[in-house]
Amino acid sequence: MKALVLEEKGVLALRDIDLPLAVGASELKIKIHTVGVCGSDVHYYTHGAIGPYVLREPMVLGHEAAGTVIEVGSAVSGFKVGDRVCMEPGIPDLSSRASKLGIYNVDPSVRFWATPPIHGVLTSEVVHPAAFTYKLPDNVSFAEGAMVEPFAIGMQAAARARIAPGDVAAVIGSGPIGIMVALAALAGGCSRVFISDFSAPKLAIAAQYSGITPVNIGEESFAEVIARETNGWGADVVFEASGSPKAYDGIFDLVRPGGAIVMVGLPVDKVSFDVAGAISKEIRIETVFRYANIFDRALQLIASGKVDLNPLITETFAFDKSIEAFERAAAGNPSDVKLQILLGDAAV
Amino acid sequence: MKALVLEEKGVLALRDIDLPLAVGASELKIKIHTVGVCGSDVHYYTHGAIGPYVLREPMVLGHEAAGTVIEVGSAVSGFKVGDRVCMEPGIPDLSSRASKLGIYNVDPSVRFWATPPIHGVLTSEVVHPAAFTYKLPDNVSFAEGAMVEPFAIGMQAAARARIAPGDVAAVIGSGPIGIMVALAALAGGCSRVFISDFSAPKLAIAAQYSGITPVNIGEESFAEVIARETNGWGADVVFEASGSPKAYDGIFDLVRPGGAIVMVGLPVDKVSFDVAGAISKEIRIETVFRYANIFDRALQLIASGKVDLNPLITETFAFDKSIEAFERAAAGNPSDVKLQILLGDAAV
Amino acid sequence: MKALVLEEKGVLALRDIDLPLAVGASELKIKIHTVGVCGSDVHYYTHGAIGPYVLREPMVLGHEAAGTVIEVGSAVSGFKVGDRVCMEPGIPDLSSRASKLGIYNVDPSVRFWATPPIHGVLTSEVVHPAAFTYKLPDNVSFAEGAMVEPFAIGMQAAARARIAPGDVAAVIGSGPIGIMVALAALAGGCSRVFISDFSAPKLAIAAQYSGITPVNIGEESFAEVIARETNGWGADVVFEASGSPKAYDGIFDLVRPGGAIVMVGLPVDKVSFDVAGAISKEIRIETVFRYANIFDRALQLIASGKVDLNPLITETFAFDKSIEAFERAAAGNPSDVKLQILLGDAAV
Amino acid sequence: MKALVLEEKGVLALRDIDLPLAVGASELKIKIHTVGVCGSDVHYYTHGAIGPYVLREPMVLGHEAAGTVIEVGSAVSGFKVGDRVCMEPGIPDLSSRASKLGIYNVDPSVRFWATPPIHGVLTSEVVHPAAFTYKLPDNVSFAEGAMVEPFAIGMQAAARARIAPGDVAAVIGSGPIGIMVALAALAGGCSRVFISDFSAPKLAIAAQYSGITPVNIGEESFAEVIARETNGWGADVVFEASGSPKAYDGIFDLVRPGGAIVMVGLPVDKVSFDVAGAISKEIRIETVFRYANIFDRALQLIASGKVDLNPLITETFAFDKSIEAFERAAAGNPSDVKLQILLGDAAV
Repeated sequence: MKALVLEEKGVLALRDIDLPLAVGASELKIKIHTVGVCGSDVHYYTHGAIGPYVLREPMVLGHEAAGTVIEVGSAVSGFKVGDRVCMEPGIPDLSSRASKLGIYNVDPSVRFWATPPIHGVLTSEVVHPAAFTYKLPDNVSFAEGAMVEPFAIGMQAAARARIAPGDVAAVIGSGPIGIMVALAALAGGCSRVFISDFSAPKLAIAAQYSGITPVNIGEESFAEVIARETNGWGADVVFEASGSPKAYDGIFDLVRPGGAIVMVGLPVDKVSFDVAGAISKEIRIETVFRYANIFDRALQLIASGKVDLNPLITETFAFDKSIEAFERAAAGNPSDVKLQILLGDAAV
Repeated sequence: MKALVLEEKGVLALRDIDLPLAVGASELKIKIHTVGVCGSDVHYYTHGAIGPYVLREPMVLGHEAAGTVIEVGSAVSGFKVGDRVCMEPGIPDLSSRASKLGIYNVDPSVRFWATPPIHGVLTSEVVHPAAFTYKLPDNVSFAEGAMVEPFAIGMQAAARARIAPGDVAAVIGSGPIGIMVALAALAGGCSRVFISDFSAPKLAIAAQYSGITPVNIGEESFAEVIARETNGWGADVVFEASGSPKAYDGIFDLVRPGGAIVMVGLPVDKVSFDVAGAISKEIRIETVFRYANIFDRALQLIASGKVDLNPLITETFAFDKSIEAFERAAAGNPSDVKLQILLGDAAV
Repeated sequence: MKALVLEEKGVLALRDIDLPLAVGASELKIKIHTVGVCGSDVHYYTHGAIGPYVLREPMVLGHEAAGTVIEVGSAVSGFKVGDRVCMEPGIPDLSSRASKLGIYNVDPSVRFWATPPIHGVLTSEVVHPAAFTYKLPDNVSFAEGAMVEPFAIGMQAAARARIAPGDVAAVIGSGPIGIMVALAALAGGCSRVFISDFSAPKLAIAAQYSGITPVNIGEESFAEVIARETNGWGADVVFEASGSPKAYDGIFDLVRPGGAIVMVGLPVDKVSFDVAGAISKEIRIETVFRYANIFDRALQLIASGKVDLNPLITETFAFDKSIEAFERAAAGNPSDVKLQILLGDAAV
Repeated sequence: MKALVLEEKGVLALRDIDLPLAVGASELKIKIHTVGVCGSDVHYYTHGAIGPYVLREPMVLGHEAAGTVIEVGSAVSGFKVGDRVCMEPGIPDLSSRASKLGIYNVDPSVRFWATPPIHGVLTSEVVHPAAFTYKLPDNVSFAEGAMVEPFAIGMQAAARARIAPGDVAAVIGSGPIGIMVALAALAGGCSRVFISDFSAPKLAIAAQYSGITPVNIGEESFAEVIARETNGWGADVVFEASGSPKAYDGIFDLVRPGGAIVMVGLPVDKVSFDVAGAISKEIRIETVFRYANIFDRALQLIASGKVDLNPLITETFAFDKSIEAFERAAAGNPSDVKLQILLGDAAV
């Protein structure tokens, strides 16, 4: 089966590879339609590793996927051939202690697409547990379906924040994740979201959305804007979505007494953290690792029209242009939010 | 000072009455601009009592109010003469045990406007603690300001529900409170809200809002609609906003396993309650008594444009027509959501 | 294999019965040592049904069990032959929506021991998923291990209550479940627990424990005692553990403003419920259906010595006297808390 | 009135000083009986400042106090002359936004005893708001009453942790605060508490308490002990109570997936913080700033016998030996937990 294979750091090939396609009793076989290119895919391509996950053998990339059910396992109910679906890319051990608690995302034994040594889904077909496959509502496109995965990270952040209706949020970093977080925070109950970045093009993308106010921190202080707009009280929730260690300088100036910080971005190194600053406002800090129990509610928000992800799909590539798509993504154009790849017939 | 006085059950008079107008150090004097007519005002007019609160002496009606600051107490900061404001009508003892816990709404010593024997604000001027007065953002009108109080009940319900982003809600009862709850639930993170009633005109008002689906329970079963729309899972949150004891029949059929019921409506009598039904799905049940710490976040949602209350203001009356307004409200036209009264110069 | 079989309502037999004993990859075979007699077992014996669960074919009774691992499935890690264990009697579908959320107790497809038509474990050996089997710490006896199941209900109640350290609790009903709840509430952070009953012998059992104050409501008003002991404020949490509809009369007089009611007892019929009483104090109401993710923490509390269940084991019967044990339990002696049955060699 | 005055850094005097003693309507005058010596008092003595709080004028020390009501303000109910009480040393603005939310501890305008420029209570008499004064139950001594303040910090930490019944806790640092946290965590629902330190004498004090396991991290790895005792799962809650930046090295190795870290100790400088470590287990982090709504529940736990603070009172000094007490405290003997000073007649 043809797939986009990361042979080694920096080397991609569109070639045949053997992938297991036997359908277990509680599994589905899915014909892949659309796959988004994620920053982590690109990072494996450019660096060959993310933290402890090191590419040691060729690996199929891609984990943001939507497609169509083409075979249904014997014990599956609720799905039929032809169903349009998107898939949650991490498969936990459902009988683990973490899974039983409902936090299967932190089950240490999760197998996650395109995280070495697990293959991703930039290929024609994939077999996946029905329990982690979600039907697309009729008014949700494959392209939107393939956006559910990155949006789910924003949704997990919004869920962990425990937003109260009308909260004011500040999001640090207007990259793809920051924008997803901002949209989830707005849909999830915030009245206003302020988003910061140094990049005017990135901020311009966020600024398309009503309710999101961009703040160019090359030009003005984020803390001053937040203070001015909240009568000196501070944001109820601050989402750190840049992954930059510098984001932690003065981060507690953004947040109100008793407010929350949500750590979404993943700094490569340790950061310098002001414990006393956190304590003096008795801040709650939440962290976000992927997502759990989010895909269905993300789909509800998209189907309802409360969240429109289409403006974030910058460009779509045919499968045979997928190396080009990765090169484009690796170039890091600040105006590119999401590049997607169309598979098989879809790509015609 | 002229005021709308409820002399006794069924007898209203627009007449002069002595009201205390000395401004304490932490108080404001406010010229009233707009006052909404609330169901409780009307109930005192028609019945002379609500539960344990019995009218024994003439009482000024009205507790949904907006106006302009005309005098500022010596110890007040953050307000100046001319500020446009709305007011939270309950004044707790801030040093009580409940207030220290942040739940000042359940402080037994709360003094609440137009709840016997406390006078309301259908009059020219009122003195009120600055701590329970809220500035109107520039883009929020007096009419909207006077809607904050009833909307705050919906907001309190949404806050107590602890909505997770994307939750599906069901609201029982499409009266003014039900609609407020539905709007707060949507703004507060729900993806979809289903609202039920027997009255087509009431449902039509709710149906104006994108995201709210009306269900006429004279024509179809609410439980069946919810089941169909949620693949048999049920609503994440069910708000009981009708106050009808019948609403409790089969209420647990509406809600998903592990979901929540929020009791907002106030039945006159005890209801027949299916404890086993609640237990078998391990339902959480929340109740709503007025609101606490809600006005500022309600105003944020209105100012941000996420919540538009203007379609709910059915008609506006000059102060000297306020008895007419009450008679109209007492008639109970199902198409009337909110009647408002303009005071003083505003009424010209 | 010999088992205690409920042939039909009122008819018990100690006889051979065929039970499946094949050990799946993720299962354990366990030799049963001790089984407690539960009120639900007795109710099936005396009534043939509990709510919708009706005995239609002979069924082995018993679901409170401890024993020893005698065979380990091929995919199981963490267990070996000879491990002393206790077992969680409900087996959910781990891939269900409820299970993924961590609330597998409300998965509609749970199979629960000794709930028709699922056999219980009053027999020599049983096969059970490793994921729902828990090792007994060295200082926890088989008898205590067989008490974990009923104690888990108390623990679930305490967990759902979200006790804050130092909370005052009131427990309605000093039967076995009420006492379990009281012990869990105390161990779970309450400073004091008041427990009510009409039965002096039942109260005497609870009164053995330091921190539990018995209140005989044939002699004094529970609400008055609570008011006196809390300076008129009320209990932070009230657990309804009697299952009596009368318990709901005036229940909100027991609880403080903003406090919580936890419904544990299962009334046969609907109860008369004072919605206005709940709302006026803005009470949170939680319900308890069995338990999820509780056995390990229950065992921790027993092993640590914070909870001593031994005083609740009233008498122990050999397996061949198990019908006698059920007759004794059915007689309903108020001084009997828990009767246990010893199986096989253990019974010698 | 005679008081222990910190004249400047390093200079204490027991001398007369003018202090305001007019009793406002909602205040009490209290004759001080016992005052504990706190690390912060000692730090002002030795360093003249804590963070932004700098001693600029002579200041009376002491904020852990118990005494007897000797005068009652005109508007106070619930207190009478002769009541034995302890006092919460921070007085917020009750009408502030934070106070209305119930988090008055983070009200920026709090006035806190013995925090420059506010005088403390190492003197004969003090005037204090009734709302922040708590009656001592009959079985709670003045000495215990003066321990409520430091214990309240442990209680606030336990409350913020949201302990579930049976949780396993790890406490870093066996100083006075670490021990208070450990006791509050145990009383607040934990089954077991592991506490770490390099100091054998400090650990010996903690080890007096059943349920607390000391771990000398000069001899063994805390992470290895926790892993061994929790089957590799980790502690549910980790309390950082040392204030040492080194405590943050590897802190996430101690905690289970989805667990919580509670920051209690106040490092002087920023710490090196492993955001990726926190995220990979999706840890929740809470911080603790003093306490709010804790004194009454702390007293309940002491009165109930669940918490015994007497073993932590190392030595008691007469008022005229109070400089000696501070010198002893400044010496930092690891076996000293709490030194107390008896005032006036009490000191005879």
